[in-house]
Amino acid sequence: MEAVNLNKKECKFVVAVDESEESMYALSWCLGNLISQNTTNNLVLLYVKPPPPVYSSFHAAGYVFSSDVIRALEKYGSDLVKSVMGRAEAICGKFSSNIHVERIVGSGDAKDVICHIVDKIKADTLVMGSHGYGFFKRALLGSVSDHCAKHVKCPVVIVKHPEKR
Amino acid sequence: MEAVNLNKKECKFVVAVDESEESMYALSWCLGNLISQNTTNNLVLLYVKPPPPVYSSFHAAGYVFSSDVIRALEKYGSDLVKSVMGRAEAICGKFSSNIHVERIVGSGDAKDVICHIVDKIKADTLVMGSHGYGFFKRALLGSVSDHCAKHVKCPVVIVKHPEKR
Repeated sequence: MEAVNLNKKECKFVVAVDESEESMYALSWCLGNLISQNTTNNLVLLYVKPPPPVYSSFHAAGYVFSSDVIRALEKYGSDLVKSVMGRAEAICGKFSSNIHVERIVGSGDAKDVICHIVDKIKADTLVMGSHGYGFFKRALLGSVSDHCAKHVKCPVVIVKHPEKR
Repeated sequence: MEAVNLNKKECKFVVAVDESEESMYALSWCLGNLISQNTTNNLVLLYVKPPPPVYSSFHAAGYVFSSDVIRALEKYGSDLVKSVMGRAEAICGKFSSNIHVERIVGSGDAKDVICHIVDKIKADTLVMGSHGYGFFKRALLGSVSDHCAKHVKCPVVIVKHPEKR
């Protein structure tokens, strides 16, 4: 059996964040339960935007959006990233500890992007809410946390919001 | 948003153990990553035996086992519990920390029993391997970790064995 490395000097956590309360709660859980004082902690806040075709001028249902609408949607998406990341960093700020926080914003199908990035940056642990991924109710298309738990290589923590239990 | 309680004096972790290397690795991961020096840690080693009908005198395929065979099977099951628990406790012993270890042996469908016990004893975190639950290859009947991640109320950590990644 391969032993768990207890003398690791550096740990990289990825927390998948979105607009949901649950993802913010998962972040707090990570900060409160996984961050050790004896290691250097790299915390990656990962937000995944929907893929570009959502904003294309031809809507799936056949409606044609004007360029103003497209620009407004793009601005909305970009404001959302700022808002989610700002909120997440505020939560990190409350935990006085040796944490280095980094932002990664991906684009595409949330479940694929999360798995890809977690493996690519060789994260030690992925933390995420059990529901969400909020924007455009992508959760309805299938559980992102289910998929990630199956496909990423590192341990995955799935955190439920207490009010949704 | 309900805040994560950082001043908690006592934490209860449940680790679902079975005969698999993966569940032992999950236990090591829990001991190495979740146990805090600042709290009292209660670690529950939970093993679930298959339900009694497996040992009944009428086998599903119609074979009739003699009472000797049934006794031998029962002894095998009981030896297995001792072996798994003994191994798990040996792993706990390597981690010199403030951990109170408790054994719970359940019987029935692993996924239902794990969810029931985790909620009943109000565990703070459930830790388990992603595959297994080994005995009689129950994993083939559906993923236990999938089911538990969906149904228990507390955060669930799903740990993969490095060799199976």
